Amino acid sequence: MKKEVTIGIDIGGTNTVIGIVDRAANVLAETSISTTGFPDVADYVAAIHKSIQEELLKDRNDLDLKAIGIGAPNGNYYKGTIEYPPNLVWQGVIPLCELFGKYYRIPVVLTNDANAAAMGEMIFGGAKNMKNFVVYTLGTGLGSGIIIDGNLVYGHTGFAGEIGHTIMVPGGRECGCGRQGCLETYVSATGIVKTVSELFALRRTPSELRRIPPEQLTAKMITEAAAKGDAIALEAFDKTADMLALSIVNTVAFSSPEALFLFGGLANAGKFIFEPTEKYVNEKIQQIFKNTVKVLPSQLMESNAAVLGASALAWKEIEPQS
Amino acid sequence: MKKEVTIGIDIGGTNTVIGIVDRAANVLAETSISTTGFPDVADYVAAIHKSIQEELLKDRNDLDLKAIGIGAPNGNYYKGTIEYPPNLVWQGVIPLCELFGKYYRIPVVLTNDANAAAMGEMIFGGAKNMKNFVVYTLGTGLGSGIIIDGNLVYGHTGFAGEIGHTIMVPGGRECGCGRQGCLETYVSATGIVKTVSELFALRRTPSELRRIPPEQLTAKMITEAAAKGDAIALEAFDKTADMLALSIVNTVAFSSPEALFLFGGLANAGKFIFEPTEKYVNEKIQQIFKNTVKVLPSQLMESNAAVLGASALAWKEIEPQS
Repeated sequence: MKKEVTIGIDIGGTNTVIGIVDRAANVLAETSISTTGFPDVADYVAAIHKSIQEELLKDRNDLDLKAIGIGAPNGNYYKGTIEYPPNLVWQGVIPLCELFGKYYRIPVVLTNDANAAAMGEMIFGGAKNMKNFVVYTLGTGLGSGIIIDGNLVYGHTGFAGEIGHTIMVPGGRECGCGRQGCLETYVSATGIVKTVSELFALRRTPSELRRIPPEQLTAKMITEAAAKGDAIALEAFDKTADMLALSIVNTVAFSSPEALFLFGGLANAGKFIFEPTEKYVNEKIQQIFKNTVKVLPSQLMESNAAVLGASALAWKEIEPQS
Repeated sequence: MKKEVTIGIDIGGTNTVIGIVDRAANVLAETSISTTGFPDVADYVAAIHKSIQEELLKDRNDLDLKAIGIGAPNGNYYKGTIEYPPNLVWQGVIPLCELFGKYYRIPVVLTNDANAAAMGEMIFGGAKNMKNFVVYTLGTGLGSGIIIDGNLVYGHTGFAGEIGHTIMVPGGRECGCGRQGCLETYVSATGIVKTVSELFALRRTPSELRRIPPEQLTAKMITEAAAKGDAIALEAFDKTADMLALSIVNTVAFSSPEALFLFGGLANAGKFIFEPTEKYVNEKIQQIFKNTVKVLPSQLMESNAAVLGASALAWKEIEPQS
């Protein structure tokens, strides 16, 4: 009997990673192509097809490809489109799933990367037995994927799950979305850098971080400083956790998940982010939700999480509703 | 052929209303009993049963009772319980559906009143063809019912949909839940009264409302003053709408509904609340959600909405998933 597999495709601004994944989360083979090298998206899809057939599936008659899942910025699950992606070379509404239909007669499904991460957590990660949870991806921005009753929330438009763009501070920090005070301007790798700048102004405390030009300061440097006991770095984590906890308790009021998973850059700061977040969640949470929700690190390895997430989307598509 | 009906039971702090409802939203018969008159909840359920059998269903062999739906404060759909209700005579966890099981072998389901209102909107009201929408009930507090993919969101605990207790202003107004700055302290019949008090302090503008003792001031009086052009009343609606719009755009970022329905006291203020809310939603909403969501008045009559909502819960329970 052939082994059933799906393909996960992670479309990043620079590179596109393509992997074959079995049901046990093994990435059997992986390759990548440039995302930027194809001004015409039809050529790009042709190149992905070629990579799959001539590299990944070459001499693999033992594999039975069941479905393809794609994680892409501004991906719309309902329409199978990428819509007005700010960081990709293609413009407007790109009918990606339709283009794949030229080559494949199996299901091809697409969503944004944070939704794919949530699906990865459910199919392969720490949420295997959960029906209600939320994933916060803490990278340059803050993405989120919301699972309710075992399904991703896409909403009326297909774009639901933009917790990073909930407004936490009316009139607050300028956001890339054109508005002000969005969660991701506070809680993300770039957000904590801004918080450090704010603390430089507020506090007289010395800090080695004051020696670094703000443009070069990274969340990783702040984590390293925190590990050495730098007071500004520690307070920056505390303030970030405070805002994250506020978002978490509001998310809990909304959909009452069993767990919140933190994924990506900032989540790697470990206890510096998890301990204060837990403390503030306990302080802020509504009585009826006390002790009903956990804040957990993602169980997906960052190195292949995106491909696993995209693949999980494909597995979910072909598996009967549990 | 007998006519299929369900019973909707609305448990209020003072009275319990019980109605027979057909699939076309006709309340065929209605009665009520005192909620406070039964220190033992078993006696209360016996009294409801008696009212149903001896009043509502008496000489109605033409009716086929299919299910019972109950709307109750702190109702838990999963467990069929009322849990620690602050305003009822019974204490702790009350296994209401189980108690009904003594009398009925048909499905008996229970949820909180705002969830029931959302179900009523979907089965009988303005959301008949919608799969994703949210109802805000603007009464003394602010309740909410969230429908995603055609189902009420109960979450892991059964208590999801507490948008009234999302924290909008950290350190803000004291809330009955023991915390501060919850949405319902700003956006509700009592919230707008507080906003008027705040404006009395901020503004020098004369207002007839200044003649009324704050304890006696009601949202209805504020609406009447607004209708007469009272500047404080109009600004209070504007500020209420501003906060409501902030909550709405954050709700849209979360679950991307097709519509938000406003129900109850404050929603009756009509243009004074809807016009500024629409304006602020348009101002605040994230680009990708522009023009994807409507803010609408509930299409349920307030006089029988609670019984219809409870009945809708029962209908939803016995109808096949669409």
